[in-house]
Amino acid sequence: MEDAVVLAARCAAPAAGEPYLLTPGPLTTARSTKEAMLRDWGSWDAEFREMTAQLRRALLDIAGDVAGDYDCVPLQGSGSYCVEAMLGSLVPRDGHALVLANGAYGKRIATTLRYLGRRHTVLDKGDYLPPRGSEVERMLAVDHTITHVVVVHCETSSGILNPIGEIAAATAKHGRKLLIDSMSAFGAVPLDVREIRCEAFVSSANKCIEGVPGFGFVIARRDALRDAKGRSHSLSLDLHDQWDAMNRTGQWRFTPPTHAVAAFIEALRLHALEGGPRGRLARYARNRDVLVSEMQALGFEPLLGERWRSPVIVTFFAPAHPAFRFERFYALMKEQGFIIYPGKLTVVDSFRIGCIGQVDASVMQRVAKACAHALGAMGVDCAAPSDAALRERGALAAMA
Amino acid sequence: MEDAVVLAARCAAPAAGEPYLLTPGPLTTARSTKEAMLRDWGSWDAEFREMTAQLRRALLDIAGDVAGDYDCVPLQGSGSYCVEAMLGSLVPRDGHALVLANGAYGKRIATTLRYLGRRHTVLDKGDYLPPRGSEVERMLAVDHTITHVVVVHCETSSGILNPIGEIAAATAKHGRKLLIDSMSAFGAVPLDVREIRCEAFVSSANKCIEGVPGFGFVIARRDALRDAKGRSHSLSLDLHDQWDAMNRTGQWRFTPPTHAVAAFIEALRLHALEGGPRGRLARYARNRDVLVSEMQALGFEPLLGERWRSPVIVTFFAPAHPAFRFERFYALMKEQGFIIYPGKLTVVDSFRIGCIGQVDASVMQRVAKACAHALGAMGVDCAAPSDAALRERGALAAMA
Repeated sequence: MEDAVVLAARCAAPAAGEPYLLTPGPLTTARSTKEAMLRDWGSWDAEFREMTAQLRRALLDIAGDVAGDYDCVPLQGSGSYCVEAMLGSLVPRDGHALVLANGAYGKRIATTLRYLGRRHTVLDKGDYLPPRGSEVERMLAVDHTITHVVVVHCETSSGILNPIGEIAAATAKHGRKLLIDSMSAFGAVPLDVREIRCEAFVSSANKCIEGVPGFGFVIARRDALRDAKGRSHSLSLDLHDQWDAMNRTGQWRFTPPTHAVAAFIEALRLHALEGGPRGRLARYARNRDVLVSEMQALGFEPLLGERWRSPVIVTFFAPAHPAFRFERFYALMKEQGFIIYPGKLTVVDSFRIGCIGQVDASVMQRVAKACAHALGAMGVDCAAPSDAALRERGALAAMA
Repeated sequence: MEDAVVLAARCAAPAAGEPYLLTPGPLTTARSTKEAMLRDWGSWDAEFREMTAQLRRALLDIAGDVAGDYDCVPLQGSGSYCVEAMLGSLVPRDGHALVLANGAYGKRIATTLRYLGRRHTVLDKGDYLPPRGSEVERMLAVDHTITHVVVVHCETSSGILNPIGEIAAATAKHGRKLLIDSMSAFGAVPLDVREIRCEAFVSSANKCIEGVPGFGFVIARRDALRDAKGRSHSLSLDLHDQWDAMNRTGQWRFTPPTHAVAAFIEALRLHALEGGPRGRLARYARNRDVLVSEMQALGFEPLLGERWRSPVIVTFFAPAHPAFRFERFYALMKEQGFIIYPGKLTVVDSFRIGCIGQVDASVMQRVAKACAHALGAMGVDCAAPSDAALRERGALAAMA
């Protein structure tokens, strides 16, 4: 396997003039993944139906569903559509969801439940503190009306990897059901249904599997999908209806993004060639480690300590230097071929650099060099963060 | 303009081994449209935001919105998602919609309204009879609680072009609001908001503009979009929220199908080069006319008379000959490079052939030749339809 990893880790550069996307999706995809979109597919035709079946089987394999307890339901639209479909279809109208929020995506889950008119309680941990299993246990012990726990696997707002193992254990111990938004994690960060007891989880084509955006998918227990009949608030986002029609006809109910599906088939091939989730995790983790050490050598500091740092995206504090401006930094990085991402912390300034997509450690070294050049061009001679930023980090360290 | 039409009408053949898609979407797109997907775009980046702005402006131009009364809201997902977003956002919770149905897409509108819990009345004209302005007038005169009329522009179930001019006039005369599902018509069949008074209409990337599937768009009156605040049943399909966020930030709220957007920009360029909706209509109408006359020469009969026959897709009766099997016919057509479409009539057997996408009259001649060959291979010496089929057509002729 090591050889496959090394082989696949040599990512091809994008075409001339095209920057690397160091963002948590859309991300830089392989040339052959994009080339798979150079033909048109009839969605009614047997060949395309077989592509859909193949995609569903491959995703269940990656999820470790050897027992056949789960099924995979791809759904047109962005990943957030799939989260809404999962919530609207799997949480009964008289259910009560405990939402574990520590960033924008956790908050979006709460907003979605508000739209759906589903009772929900939010455990809001702020910008980046992790929700812990012990906290979930305490809340479930006190409130017996809670039927579901909803958690974000990797919250890309900060780049934190939430401890879904202890959260799944706490949820199972109290006999409740777990729903996971594993959008930016599944396919690289381990999520095996034999180890993580969950009712369902969601991910998207355009994250760690490295397809192009256009659809996402829900992997859910078959009994949960059966029970979801007639429950959805929306025809388009009715998971049961999509599942049932797909199993009966092999087709998507409405026009599928055929080109994105073809690209995904090729992306799955490359994923397997790299050694599946293990191989991909190895490359992403190395990307992260090289990035962090090179950035630290420049004086930049990451928000999160090692334990919580995902291999998906890393938040760095903005330098305290008065000449640092994010917009200028962004433009200077883009000139050098790298699209980075603004931060989402509410208290201190930050920016984010993604580690996923067709990038490897050599790219990460060049990213750090480009950062050094950008700092020089701005006249920033010290990348160290503000005292306020370091106090933020101290609070996190004390907590963890 | 005539030159541009002739120039663009010479459609390039698909790559070797790739069949023409004679279906009402996904359809055969231009090579350069697909090649536009060979790069990755950051959705947060200014270049992509400009692509989104350009797309919105171009679609408003095609709709004839010179007064600036309308705005264009692209939305991730299939076209049916956009129909649901339009209905859930623009029909108030205490509204009452009159749905004019004559096929699967009209029925889907009624199903969607049932999910949304919106009061609705269906005028069901069966498989293919057109809803008429006079019928709408009578229903609106009697029922003052009806707030909206919803109609399908081209109902691809049969290929009928519904008379939206007289329906718009009837709706306006009674002071009600018109919503149009123009999925398979807009971009070729005239839909100019200066002539057709409507509150909003929907179409998709992958129909007459000839982009790839992945998103659709709603073109709605700005005041209707403003009034839609807080009304949607769904976060993902909240048209007001998508509109408002897009106008404030230039971005899509959730990850957009970046490659499909890039393809659409190229598709819009080819659309303009062909002379806009007029040029495209000319090619599609010629496709239809050549197809029908060549098929009639083989003994096939179209369901609809000339007046109702859209330039989008044509329904033909299946031959009455006992050796005719659609599955075999489909396979024989596919072997010869053409993907056709099954029929949707409930009473008699039929099949459909699309006229849209990167196909021209020479392709249509080859389609008819391929049909002749397929009949021969099946041992069908006469393509004439059954008496039952001709009685169906007689009923339609009497009505129209």
